[in-house]
Amino acid sequence: VSVTYPRGFRAAGVTAGLKASGRPDLGLLVADDGAAAAGAFTTNAFPAAPVILSRSHLASGRTAAVVVNSGQANAGTGPEGLDDAKTMARLTGSALGCDATEVLVCSTGVIGPRVPLDRIGSELPTAAGLLDPTGGTAFAESILTTDRAPKEATADTGPYRVGGCAKGAGMIAPRLAPLGTLLAFITTDAPATAPALQRIVAERIVPAWNGLVVDGCQSTNDTVLLLATGAAGGTAIGPEDPGVEDLAEAIGDVSVSLARRTAAEAEGASTTLVVQVEGAGTADEARGVGLAVAGSPLVKTALFGADPNAGRILQAVGDAGVELDPAAFDVRLDNVPLISSGRVLEPNDTVAAAMKEPEVVLTVSVGNGSGSATVFGCDLGYEYVRINAEYRT
Amino acid sequence: VSVTYPRGFRAAGVTAGLKASGRPDLGLLVADDGAAAAGAFTTNAFPAAPVILSRSHLASGRTAAVVVNSGQANAGTGPEGLDDAKTMARLTGSALGCDATEVLVCSTGVIGPRVPLDRIGSELPTAAGLLDPTGGTAFAESILTTDRAPKEATADTGPYRVGGCAKGAGMIAPRLAPLGTLLAFITTDAPATAPALQRIVAERIVPAWNGLVVDGCQSTNDTVLLLATGAAGGTAIGPEDPGVEDLAEAIGDVSVSLARRTAAEAEGASTTLVVQVEGAGTADEARGVGLAVAGSPLVKTALFGADPNAGRILQAVGDAGVELDPAAFDVRLDNVPLISSGRVLEPNDTVAAAMKEPEVVLTVSVGNGSGSATVFGCDLGYEYVRINAEYRT
Repeated sequence: VSVTYPRGFRAAGVTAGLKASGRPDLGLLVADDGAAAAGAFTTNAFPAAPVILSRSHLASGRTAAVVVNSGQANAGTGPEGLDDAKTMARLTGSALGCDATEVLVCSTGVIGPRVPLDRIGSELPTAAGLLDPTGGTAFAESILTTDRAPKEATADTGPYRVGGCAKGAGMIAPRLAPLGTLLAFITTDAPATAPALQRIVAERIVPAWNGLVVDGCQSTNDTVLLLATGAAGGTAIGPEDPGVEDLAEAIGDVSVSLARRTAAEAEGASTTLVVQVEGAGTADEARGVGLAVAGSPLVKTALFGADPNAGRILQAVGDAGVELDPAAFDVRLDNVPLISSGRVLEPNDTVAAAMKEPEVVLTVSVGNGSGSATVFGCDLGYEYVRINAEYRT
Repeated sequence: VSVTYPRGFRAAGVTAGLKASGRPDLGLLVADDGAAAAGAFTTNAFPAAPVILSRSHLASGRTAAVVVNSGQANAGTGPEGLDDAKTMARLTGSALGCDATEVLVCSTGVIGPRVPLDRIGSELPTAAGLLDPTGGTAFAESILTTDRAPKEATADTGPYRVGGCAKGAGMIAPRLAPLGTLLAFITTDAPATAPALQRIVAERIVPAWNGLVVDGCQSTNDTVLLLATGAAGGTAIGPEDPGVEDLAEAIGDVSVSLARRTAAEAEGASTTLVVQVEGAGTADEARGVGLAVAGSPLVKTALFGADPNAGRILQAVGDAGVELDPAAFDVRLDNVPLISSGRVLEPNDTVAAAMKEPEVVLTVSVGNGSGSATVFGCDLGYEYVRINAEYRT
């Protein structure tokens, strides 16, 4: 149920005929009494039209509904695309009885084509009629493109519930900036204020999602939204209130869980790579080192081949733009050294066996400071090439 | 004959048993009366031992010989690796009768293992005995790893000859800094001084090679060397002398020719991508935009699938870190518009046919200024994955 696990939300997903596959492609997530809202968006210089619109609608810190279509990204569509996104918000407001400015819009799919507004307009009343407190999974299904299955997660913290869902399998390298075709929706029934949500987005959600890389290509459409209905009751939680840390931790856990799952189920992926970086100058520097390793096509193809090619890890870290002392540089796979004091060691049988596991965990010690980060990635195999050579034609 | 086309050079290539394939793996390039020399090296934070040594030997601006081994990169080898590179210089000096500091050392191959000094030492006298003014191709063959064939080029400018050879098929994204496992050797018999060569390296060679991307992974070993014997005679050419421009242009042409060939024959490549960027703020910014397009796995897989997916070009440019006005952004394939004023157009049959050619030329107009650059890349297909998943195991 994911996004509808917290109280105060209803959701639905329907098929409007936007995707050639005939799979569900139009989702609605509604907070009947409204929700405090915060978000983070792609920093691509060509943001999609719905990104531009939703960023502006989020300025109020409140929202009534989120509408999502899959099939067309509504990016690279010029001023007409922005008009289309506004029309999607207006049609959604009409179907739900709220103002267009209370609607957040997300799109994902092929860049270039315009969204078929006629199909969306005729199917929105159906979706509104199907809205249900158990509709989270239907919503999570309707937002998928090349994903294998819906990605959902939930958590509890004291009296509050947290839920989330995400889509994304390719064009994944979010570099979100707080207020990315990664879409993630995280909900809670905690009575958190918009400023509290903004803090949680900046401190927990952005680092979790920006520590994810599939192919190094940041989408024009990446969007992460955090909505809080307050339906669990209790006094309001502001950004400096004592309850904010526990809530932030639960929301962070849901984000990390969804990000890890996104890596595991990325386009063509068969192995998940977890890079734990420690000893960097800062957490950002640590994340940069982790992304350099997890994003390297040579590391990714070695992972596909189950080849413990530590030289490629050395190359990738050396290319991360971080100052390094080779003599203080160590890499371990599980707890077996791969690189010690900057020397690439000859791999042994333990290492070769560990490379064949479905999840490979590297620990990279930079030796510069106390900054740390965890980054999720995946292998690069024939299937990624097949999917992306055949995606559109 | 490439590097031995200019007068004053002799070269040889032999098999020392450094590579499992049994192919030639030890090369010598010698300037009997010495040569003015300049170079550019990887900016990877883990430079290979021979990079560290050659950078220091280049400080004199003169060299007598270059020794190259393929099979082991002598990177990630710690202080022992630097000792090994020094020993290679000393053994070469002994075989040729010159000082170790007059020898430049290059290595390419697997990162981690140490170079087998015993085999190199026992084979160097043989190589010295085979040195010949027609030995350029044997030298060019001895430096290859996953390359398909030697890459050679020559040019003439007035009374002077220019020759060059290169190796490199994967781990290619040079970001050379003037003084990569891209190795390139460019020779001339012009009487150019070391400062003139340094200027030509900075202005012609570095931009040519840094406009090349195969997999986005900058090697620990990238090295480009420019050697001038002056054997053609004539008065010395200093960095501000009138003759320097013509010589620079010929050397630039040889560099671009070798870089284009490196892209065309990269690991698994079947299509060459040429990205001509115009209207950027600066030439560096233009090169950044071109590298973002040519380096994108999504553009590369679309190229492999002959799919004119212009949305992926838009995404890649938007992610290049350059300020852009979407309304002024245009992309053409040959002369057919793919993106016009930031709008991704529906591809037509002309475009689909052009995508099937062995070389695809994109023109990207940023609309910001007058900076331009040409970048070379290639497609990403099953063969790149196969080569890199099986390279070592």
